[in-house]
Amino acid sequence: MNSNQDGIIVIKIGGAAGVDYSAVCTDAARLIEAGKQVVLVHGGSADATALGEDIGHPPRFVTSPSGFTSRYTDRRTLDIFAMAVNGGLNTRIVEQLRTLGVNAFGMSGLDGGLITAKRKGSIRIVENGKRKMLHDDYTGKIQHVDVSLLQTFLAAGYTPVISPMAVSQDGEALNTDADRMAAMIAAALKAQNLLLLTAVPGLMRSFPDESTLISDLSQRDLKVALEYAEGRMKKKVLGAQEALDGGAQQVIIADGRIEAPISNALSGNGTTIH
Amino acid sequence: MNSNQDGIIVIKIGGAAGVDYSAVCTDAARLIEAGKQVVLVHGGSADATALGEDIGHPPRFVTSPSGFTSRYTDRRTLDIFAMAVNGGLNTRIVEQLRTLGVNAFGMSGLDGGLITAKRKGSIRIVENGKRKMLHDDYTGKIQHVDVSLLQTFLAAGYTPVISPMAVSQDGEALNTDADRMAAMIAAALKAQNLLLLTAVPGLMRSFPDESTLISDLSQRDLKVALEYAEGRMKKKVLGAQEALDGGAQQVIIADGRIEAPISNALSGNGTTIH
Repeated sequence: MNSNQDGIIVIKIGGAAGVDYSAVCTDAARLIEAGKQVVLVHGGSADATALGEDIGHPPRFVTSPSGFTSRYTDRRTLDIFAMAVNGGLNTRIVEQLRTLGVNAFGMSGLDGGLITAKRKGSIRIVENGKRKMLHDDYTGKIQHVDVSLLQTFLAAGYTPVISPMAVSQDGEALNTDADRMAAMIAAALKAQNLLLLTAVPGLMRSFPDESTLISDLSQRDLKVALEYAEGRMKKKVLGAQEALDGGAQQVIIADGRIEAPISNALSGNGTTIH
Repeated sequence: MNSNQDGIIVIKIGGAAGVDYSAVCTDAARLIEAGKQVVLVHGGSADATALGEDIGHPPRFVTSPSGFTSRYTDRRTLDIFAMAVNGGLNTRIVEQLRTLGVNAFGMSGLDGGLITAKRKGSIRIVENGKRKMLHDDYTGKIQHVDVSLLQTFLAAGYTPVISPMAVSQDGEALNTDADRMAAMIAAALKAQNLLLLTAVPGLMRSFPDESTLISDLSQRDLKVALEYAEGRMKKKVLGAQEALDGGAQQVIIADGRIEAPISNALSGNGTTIH
């Protein structure tokens, strides 16, 4: 066991359709077996959308003036998100890891006040070219990660599997962006690696032309990279910036749809940012 | 703070409709504020049923040859249970406790291998007077509670909020009966009190005649009491037996539909078994 020798890996598994959770779990189990400390953070967008559609409350996606897309989270949408993501997906990932011999422990940012966020309440959006305000939103901007709680779990041999909900100062449940959450966790833990596994091979200069994949990127070029990033990739680039600013050593944006996606990313396939 | 002086209280909040979660949380917060160590276990039957109906997979309730009713849990039903109970209900209880200042930590028996159970796989049922076997069932009989994990949470000031799923030796997720789970937890912790809060005032000699409420019962009379118990009350009586056999000091079956249901139970209203 060389448990902490090489530092901690934080792995974010995308909520997007196409990401192979099973391959990620198998690959993670191998690393953990070899003594590596791993924290898994998952999305769940596709699951929450499917459940919302099934029960007649489909999600509403909105775009901010600066071009970020997010789920408008009224109270009912928050409950659906909790069911699909804290309940369905988190339990399935914990179960899968446990069948592989990993001592996984599922939690969300609410549990033990692990992740505190500031509730936005009202959000500015652009719809049909017009600016609007939406109220009663249950999303939050992360302010604090209880790093000692995570370290306690890791030191005791547990692998935390974290669902992207946080808690406000008043104790309210909030939906948060999983990429940004993984970034804040990686920063707090001064992780050796933050892996953002997604449904594309990495950041491309000219999306979706995969021949323009950027394999290596310096932190100082991230501002420019934000310009290339399309849609959800913007949050990953922003997350990479936050993670590195906060003390993570390296961020890799890589393909989560393939076999051995973690080893693939760690061996340099994807976009490595440092 | 006289945190452990009076022993631990394990409180099971019923999954049945009518139980006032909000009143239970308020009452629990008051006790915890006063220095009491509390473990909450919740059901979720009504929530799982509602979600199953909403998404077109309603539950199938079956009766065992000895008269116990349970939910037949095929894989889809297990996933629905995880969403509604691990996700929806557990998150709402944790949120409510946190808004009341309690450092609640939600978990299920899968997390960290907290509760191990033996998967039944096939179950015997009686349907229209005929005996049958049902296969591919994902329910389990609890075999082990990791009491040191629970004690670690309690000692660190967290209030565990536990959802009734367990994990098999092979790592599979299993549905378990919440009353029996609460009983096994109370036994493992040698709890001072196990409170089984439900939608009736306690055990009645002649259900549903509330004038026949049994207010005090000795452990040696529980076998006889099992005869009076109707429907789900049978599992509570069985749970009481298991809790006391395992080392819990006292079990109270009491009304969960009223204001201050915990204080009410502790002050002797309900059926106290010792």
